[in-house]
Amino acid sequence: MRPKPSNVITLLTDFGTKDPYVGVMKGVIYSINPNARIVDLTHDIPSHNIDVAAVTLLVSYRYFPEGTVHVCVVDPGVGTKRRALLIVTRKYYFIGPDNGCLYPAASDDGIVSVYDISESPYRLERVSYTFHGRDIFAPVAAWISAGIEPAKVGREVDPDEVVKSWIRLAYKHKGFYDSKVIYIDKFGNVMTNIRVEKPDWGYGSKVRIELPDGRTVECTFERSFGYVDVGELVCYINSWGFFEIAVNRGNAASRLNLKVGDRIRVY
Amino acid sequence: MRPKPSNVITLLTDFGTKDPYVGVMKGVIYSINPNARIVDLTHDIPSHNIDVAAVTLLVSYRYFPEGTVHVCVVDPGVGTKRRALLIVTRKYYFIGPDNGCLYPAASDDGIVSVYDISESPYRLERVSYTFHGRDIFAPVAAWISAGIEPAKVGREVDPDEVVKSWIRLAYKHKGFYDSKVIYIDKFGNVMTNIRVEKPDWGYGSKVRIELPDGRTVECTFERSFGYVDVGELVCYINSWGFFEIAVNRGNAASRLNLKVGDRIRVY
Amino acid sequence: MRPKPSNVITLLTDFGTKDPYVGVMKGVIYSINPNARIVDLTHDIPSHNIDVAAVTLLVSYRYFPEGTVHVCVVDPGVGTKRRALLIVTRKYYFIGPDNGCLYPAASDDGIVSVYDISESPYRLERVSYTFHGRDIFAPVAAWISAGIEPAKVGREVDPDEVVKSWIRLAYKHKGFYDSKVIYIDKFGNVMTNIRVEKPDWGYGSKVRIELPDGRTVECTFERSFGYVDVGELVCYINSWGFFEIAVNRGNAASRLNLKVGDRIRVY
Repeated sequence: MRPKPSNVITLLTDFGTKDPYVGVMKGVIYSINPNARIVDLTHDIPSHNIDVAAVTLLVSYRYFPEGTVHVCVVDPGVGTKRRALLIVTRKYYFIGPDNGCLYPAASDDGIVSVYDISESPYRLERVSYTFHGRDIFAPVAAWISAGIEPAKVGREVDPDEVVKSWIRLAYKHKGFYDSKVIYIDKFGNVMTNIRVEKPDWGYGSKVRIELPDGRTVECTFERSFGYVDVGELVCYINSWGFFEIAVNRGNAASRLNLKVGDRIRVY
Repeated sequence: MRPKPSNVITLLTDFGTKDPYVGVMKGVIYSINPNARIVDLTHDIPSHNIDVAAVTLLVSYRYFPEGTVHVCVVDPGVGTKRRALLIVTRKYYFIGPDNGCLYPAASDDGIVSVYDISESPYRLERVSYTFHGRDIFAPVAAWISAGIEPAKVGREVDPDEVVKSWIRLAYKHKGFYDSKVIYIDKFGNVMTNIRVEKPDWGYGSKVRIELPDGRTVECTFERSFGYVDVGELVCYINSWGFFEIAVNRGNAASRLNLKVGDRIRVY
Repeated sequence: MRPKPSNVITLLTDFGTKDPYVGVMKGVIYSINPNARIVDLTHDIPSHNIDVAAVTLLVSYRYFPEGTVHVCVVDPGVGTKRRALLIVTRKYYFIGPDNGCLYPAASDDGIVSVYDISESPYRLERVSYTFHGRDIFAPVAAWISAGIEPAKVGREVDPDEVVKSWIRLAYKHKGFYDSKVIYIDKFGNVMTNIRVEKPDWGYGSKVRIELPDGRTVECTFERSFGYVDVGELVCYINSWGFFEIAVNRGNAASRLNLKVGDRIRVY
């Protein structure tokens, strides 16, 4: 069993939009599947930043139709021996380099099978040393979206050997979340790896947070940052469903001295 | 009677393109209407600038097929009690917050009926406090483009209660246009709210303009700015059909000391 | 005989994405051909830079399905007497101003016939002085993609009278390539007009290059820049198939004192 392809293909890269790289990937896709519907997730991932790509894909993938093919090309190892992968999950297909960028989203949905597509018979005839987005990932994505069986585009490999990412979800254990900072946005809002379906905390209650520098802070849990006074610490479930710490009209990351990757305990 | 949906949906936001917000809205749309054709009008409206969004929509909406759904998400009031609206006009559908961003375009086309979609049964199951673009506007736009009746997506409300914008068209009265500056582009060209089908002025004739600081200037009316000498004041009908004041290779806004919202009389 | 239209239309402009210009062109296209599939090649060509547009189109056009309509609107002469053209080639359609931006790609594919579409009966009813992308190029592209015969959208003209570009391919003659620098990317990598199917040079061999300032340098030919030591000169075939000179983690353009348009001899 595998998800029924939906014709939708998403593209997530660090290519920017000044050069024709992304446009050319779309040309390759339409040459293979004229019925494709291509969505730009973003092409402004900071160069080579696998972690930001992984978080972006993790928060976004589930809003697309079942059978969507998600392509991620943030690929500092292009041209080396790193593998190119197709990961089939319960509802989606993920295609990209085997460097961790696909793992958080794919494992969140539930990995079913994995294929090494580095030598795919469906790649372009000539493969360059630097542009696998065009030469391998785009054509394989197009063929998958057009209904080709995964086993035909690559060689099945052991899911346990997929490169993991340190970005994974935190679960409550012994009364607290042993969590990490996974994203800091331009306002300095601090997003953690705690995804919450139904919050334990009541609106207006205080949440205790232990910081890496040994300090402990208390933070009001609210619907959104606008519910506390200007300059006050607040925490809430952000629009992606993750626990986030902010300062109303201020910068929580600098106030709490936090950066991506930092470990914090949330009670 | 209502416009026959065309499957075309335009998106106009201040989200930028670095984050996956716009991509996720498209995922929601394709999940509902796989035949949608989505056009980015722009996502670079200055943050929270309802006026720029309103002018952008006003000059653009009519170039799309009849039955297009125009979605605007410039929404500083998200999460407050501001209403979310569907406005049905003679030829189009407009969806967005009730803050004035839709009004100039919708009233220009002719408002037929208005629906409050804040509690739409077609919104996503969970509505966040901060991302109604994904949770309300995108799904309702997708359903409308797929042919659902407006009365099913919201509660009909009084068109007179729609939040107006100060951006409206100026008409000639008692020999002059009592007009306003509605847009200044990066060259300092000053666009007014005078939309002209057939100019009263002949090419080469002089147009008298009274400025807010009491000064009066004379300005040559031409086909375009290139028809006058470098450094000379010129006025013309711009490519959107609006009366515009410029200096050939210079900056009219700074020379005339004009900013958006300023009132000028054009004779 | 002419290429069977594919419904795919590419757009290449210097409009940027802050204003709704590109979105409006898409609205015009969908109004005419609802089955169009529109690809943004890039809209960030430096303003009025015909050369960069020409190179971008040259390296990209062939990755699109046969019958794609490529539209380029980098048009400093808009509103003057410059012609608007449709060029039919062996496999594609090219539409844009007659200023050289279409020529390298079109002649590379093989020009079959050329039409002046300045007065096309398929242009919009009202043509502005400044926005032919919307008023002429978009509607003609849409009609061509929908299957209208080229002879109906314009007046056939002499292919020899098309404005040429200095950007053309260099061929080996008397033992060397008399070549030019056609693109320098943000890393200072120097792309030449030498397109190579099968390199003459073996990996690891030395290539002699004569610079405009009279100097001669030797450069290691490799698969990519990562194959030489940091700071070392290297040359290779880039992902577009062109001979390129780089410094591993350095800036070749500044080290060799090269700029776009410079002539170099490659042995």
